[in-house]
Amino acid sequence: MRPVAIIGAGKTAFGAFPDQDLRALAVAAGEKALQNAQLEPETVESFYLGNFAGPEFTSQNHLAPYISTALGMTGIPSTRFEAACASSGAAFFQAFMGVASGIYDVVMVLGVEKMTCQPTPRVTEILSGAGDCATEVKAGSTFPSLFAMIARRHMHDFGTTREHLSAVAVKNHANGALNPDAQMRKVITLEQAMNARPIAEPLNLYDCSLISDGAAAVVLCAADRAREFAVDKSAKPVKILGVAQASDWVALDQKPDITTFAAVRGAAKKAYEMAGLAPGDIQFAELHDCFTIAEIVAMEDLGFVQRGRGGFFTAEGGTRRDGPMPVNASGGLKSKGHPVGATGVGQICDLVQQIRCEAGDRQLKRHELGLAQNLGGSGATCVVTILGEY
Amino acid sequence: MRPVAIIGAGKTAFGAFPDQDLRALAVAAGEKALQNAQLEPETVESFYLGNFAGPEFTSQNHLAPYISTALGMTGIPSTRFEAACASSGAAFFQAFMGVASGIYDVVMVLGVEKMTCQPTPRVTEILSGAGDCATEVKAGSTFPSLFAMIARRHMHDFGTTREHLSAVAVKNHANGALNPDAQMRKVITLEQAMNARPIAEPLNLYDCSLISDGAAAVVLCAADRAREFAVDKSAKPVKILGVAQASDWVALDQKPDITTFAAVRGAAKKAYEMAGLAPGDIQFAELHDCFTIAEIVAMEDLGFVQRGRGGFFTAEGGTRRDGPMPVNASGGLKSKGHPVGATGVGQICDLVQQIRCEAGDRQLKRHELGLAQNLGGSGATCVVTILGEY
Repeated sequence: MRPVAIIGAGKTAFGAFPDQDLRALAVAAGEKALQNAQLEPETVESFYLGNFAGPEFTSQNHLAPYISTALGMTGIPSTRFEAACASSGAAFFQAFMGVASGIYDVVMVLGVEKMTCQPTPRVTEILSGAGDCATEVKAGSTFPSLFAMIARRHMHDFGTTREHLSAVAVKNHANGALNPDAQMRKVITLEQAMNARPIAEPLNLYDCSLISDGAAAVVLCAADRAREFAVDKSAKPVKILGVAQASDWVALDQKPDITTFAAVRGAAKKAYEMAGLAPGDIQFAELHDCFTIAEIVAMEDLGFVQRGRGGFFTAEGGTRRDGPMPVNASGGLKSKGHPVGATGVGQICDLVQQIRCEAGDRQLKRHELGLAQNLGGSGATCVVTILGEY
Repeated sequence: MRPVAIIGAGKTAFGAFPDQDLRALAVAAGEKALQNAQLEPETVESFYLGNFAGPEFTSQNHLAPYISTALGMTGIPSTRFEAACASSGAAFFQAFMGVASGIYDVVMVLGVEKMTCQPTPRVTEILSGAGDCATEVKAGSTFPSLFAMIARRHMHDFGTTREHLSAVAVKNHANGALNPDAQMRKVITLEQAMNARPIAEPLNLYDCSLISDGAAAVVLCAADRAREFAVDKSAKPVKILGVAQASDWVALDQKPDITTFAAVRGAAKKAYEMAGLAPGDIQFAELHDCFTIAEIVAMEDLGFVQRGRGGFFTAEGGTRRDGPMPVNASGGLKSKGHPVGATGVGQICDLVQQIRCEAGDRQLKRHELGLAQNLGGSGATCVVTILGEY
């Protein structure tokens, strides 16, 4: 496999955009990524779309050619990839292989989701399709309640507290407040976070990520051709050092232990191996905080902290922008927003911004080596990506 | 790119199976393919699922790990690919690249759809998501009416007749009657086919493919390792000589000419080039006859006959099992059934059966080199695959 670089990145703000349909959002992000790479659409050889539930949110299916043609790309392979909330992470993984293997030189990966067009109960219902409908969903579970069980068990096994969970929310809101593209730019206090109304106990309103519209896109290129594009060097290429995807059972009750995800550990192991790096080498990370407990579990599964220590480390400030391992400097899914199919590529765009020193007020000091972790369902899919300075 | 072989194939019958849910169908096909290859599930390194609208038909989403774990595969990348009715063709294309590039040695591609759990009007509505919902569907178009327009224009431009369309139906029903896995094993006369009740004029009931449940799976392997598996030689490996995917606008009104599909011509050109073959070299084909007119147009776009001659050639018997270019010896989507997400891999299984001389009563005389054409929507996606004897 040959080295692959990201030569262009672009995304929309995440939020509620009643005037923009799914395709308009996708095209906006795709055009930004092309502009960033200074590339004509005709140069793109294959189009990889990550989208979880466009047909259920908007009726429109067959979304890949629906979007790629509107971006000026016709004739090329154009396919949608679905892996729940890790859909665009999965698309990125396949796109990486397409270039790394030498089949393509230049491809685009785009993630998009349009969720706010449906009322909240219907959104929850659509999202629950990422769980096991025959068992979990039939029994009344929703994603907040599944992650509530995970939180409850983590508290029981490791002494994680209500305050630990809220420390994740407070930190991510503080970061998101500095992100002009974030959906909820609102600093919250620990007291506010701890006393918000319950959603699925022990999780409350501030433990849950947002319902969002948004899109994000990146252009991948064979590393040895990266310098041909973005010729004025305004858009510095970024190296893909490692990327891996792993899977596990969809239903939570099939897992021997619900406080750790085998798919996350498996994908991380492969991505670290590919990059020739260890968890301690990573300087910052964008983690899949669909719920506050998910960020804590991810910290542990990725090897950033010991098992059971994620909550304590967070409460001690370890994951703040000025801490030893900054997590979700973007604001995370919690504050930046979580348009599910866009989240994986959105995280990659956040890493690219940091590595390029384009993150403005939330720019990190150590920003040469970042990791993104994109989770699908309650741990049935995980994609881990490691990016580094060129 | 290195050579790739199919070392195992398996499918369910296509039909209405109220007692089997989507996962049960998928697992049945997947297990047959593993048995055929004499392979343990642990040997499979990546899982590629083709499915068009499982979440809308059955509520269950995140289908790839939902199925692969039930097949005994955990930890591996497991992703769903969607490209309308070409979903499993698209999955096959990506899986081929995964092995051809040397990333994987052994992978599984599985296509599945469960459609009969919804009433027919809702099925039509779900399928219309493969068209342009903002224009075509909003204006009341359904897939029968889109293909009716194509038929009408083909008749106007080339003199194709009502009898030509029915000749496709009569031939495919005659073939399907010999296929124990076909949904509608019923011979029909030309008179019956011509006088059936109208669906969207000029298309009548016998011009339309079926609403089906079903699944199909194949195991791909690096050709140089193919002989390690199926050691008793019961399952002869089959070579993948060429495979390509192309895309075009989803909406019919964006095409300069609706009687020919650029995506089909584009995918065919690339697949022929990869195989080093011309249309005249192909001995038999499985074409995407979602409607009778689609088979006629495909014949022309693939270069089997001259533009405008597809109907005449069919009426003259050219595509019968004993004709110069047998098409849909399986019965096609028309008689065998069309569980949309399974159709692409189902066609591949049909080619494999013929090449291995396992097609029973419908076995063709010239069966060493076959082509499958899998179409998504009204020509927005096409995957063309050419298989040959090992």
